[in-house]
Amino acid sequence: MFTMKITPRFCDTDALGHISNTMIPCWFEGAREPIFRFFSVELNPKKWQLILAKYEIEFLAQIYYGHDVIVHTYVSHIGQSSMHILQQVWQNNIKAVEGTTVLVHFDYQLNKAIPIPFMIQEKLRAHLIPESTN
Amino acid sequence: MFTMKITPRFCDTDALGHISNTMIPCWFEGAREPIFRFFSVELNPKKWQLILAKYEIEFLAQIYYGHDVIVHTYVSHIGQSSMHILQQVWQNNIKAVEGTTVLVHFDYQLNKAIPIPFMIQEKLRAHLIPESTN
Amino acid sequence: MFTMKITPRFCDTDALGHISNTMIPCWFEGAREPIFRFFSVELNPKKWQLILAKYEIEFLAQIYYGHDVIVHTYVSHIGQSSMHILQQVWQNNIKAVEGTTVLVHFDYQLNKAIPIPFMIQEKLRAHLIPESTN
Amino acid sequence: MFTMKITPRFCDTDALGHISNTMIPCWFEGAREPIFRFFSVELNPKKWQLILAKYEIEFLAQIYYGHDVIVHTYVSHIGQSSMHILQQVWQNNIKAVEGTTVLVHFDYQLNKAIPIPFMIQEKLRAHLIPESTN
Repeated sequence: MFTMKITPRFCDTDALGHISNTMIPCWFEGAREPIFRFFSVELNPKKWQLILAKYEIEFLAQIYYGHDVIVHTYVSHIGQSSMHILQQVWQNNIKAVEGTTVLVHFDYQLNKAIPIPFMIQEKLRAHLIPESTN
Repeated sequence: MFTMKITPRFCDTDALGHISNTMIPCWFEGAREPIFRFFSVELNPKKWQLILAKYEIEFLAQIYYGHDVIVHTYVSHIGQSSMHILQQVWQNNIKAVEGTTVLVHFDYQLNKAIPIPFMIQEKLRAHLIPESTN
Repeated sequence: MFTMKITPRFCDTDALGHISNTMIPCWFEGAREPIFRFFSVELNPKKWQLILAKYEIEFLAQIYYGHDVIVHTYVSHIGQSSMHILQQVWQNNIKAVEGTTVLVHFDYQLNKAIPIPFMIQEKLRAHLIPESTN
Repeated sequence: MFTMKITPRFCDTDALGHISNTMIPCWFEGAREPIFRFFSVELNPKKWQLILAKYEIEFLAQIYYGHDVIVHTYVSHIGQSSMHILQQVWQNNIKAVEGTTVLVHFDYQLNKAIPIPFMIQEKLRAHLIPESTN
């Protein structure tokens, strides 16, 4: 599991007074950085080999401005060329959001999915979600 | 079905040269405005009675800066107090994104779901997705 | 002058109930699209030759969700390699925001400013702000 | 001076491969949080008494994804009811952005500027920019 602390910004709120649901994909993307580094140590966008296929996100509780949040990032499935990343936003010990993102190892030149190298699979496996957490 | 034209902005792109996946929830929210008006004609945030419970979004093709997109918005399910909104982003006649958002009719004072009034159900029903489109 | 209609999105608001000041640079960038087309007709990011040097933005009145805004875009100065773009956000006949952005014609390979070609200067000149508007 | 570390997110980039200029007002707003706390310790949006009147931002160098940035926040002027906040974005020891934001102590009920209490002026004064830095 990876853990990232995020301090919500005023611009992350909306007129209902809480954090806008539209910010969560950005927070999740930010918190996937250690996963991205498995594929490109220096995070060079010109050598990017990941494409996002899907995300689904459940909103369980309001998130408030003025209190830090913690994003937990797990690997929940490792396929041939794709992986599922399960992420949660916690605030004040309440799980406020949970979502899963499907990423595909992708060759932008060939425009097709490519297998995840064994070495990277190993790294991902070290962050597989334990059964009881899911 | 509701239809909204969106002109992608340069700030909607990311370093991969295409529209960032993180923008889609914003576009979808913008394109749900006619649905929002069923619940609050004047769109007054102080009288808001909708809460977002979930969305899942599939990314089917790249979206490019420099070409308008069309967002199609359908109602795909009407429950007691919740509704499913199915939306698609089309660009150059290609369906690039499809997603479903679950909205709940909600009383922020009482902090609980409330039934969708019959009159609004009728309005939603007029935008139910035809079987063949799904 | 160029004119662009923008329908504010719920995600553009913040917890004060109005449009967040942080959205204005995005709206202005979107409304500069016709200027961008003078430099790249097809708006291809790979052939981009503009860099933003500065903007200053004054906030004169609140902008509300639920009402369209109009962005006016003028050229206020044409230099050797730079230009000043003056933009205003109007809502319900009230000027809510006014700002000026300095753009530089720029060669990203050579990493230096380059002169604005005469043909483009002519196109910009056609949109110079009239004295009385400033 | 206040200092905040920000890890750029992939969604902060644009198609030119660097951080979008449109993100900077959000980063600056985030880094003004200690200033906001002078006016509302618990950062409660319902008791907000600040309004943004203006910002001007100069872009001096590209900001890259994959490297943390530091935002420096100074007070550069304290008026009767307004204050100027000078902020800088540094990345890899290069000053990439510098900007000044004018905030006004504001009563949203009365819809007018109100004096900055002496106690808060004292707190702001402790963060006045030293002459040599400007």
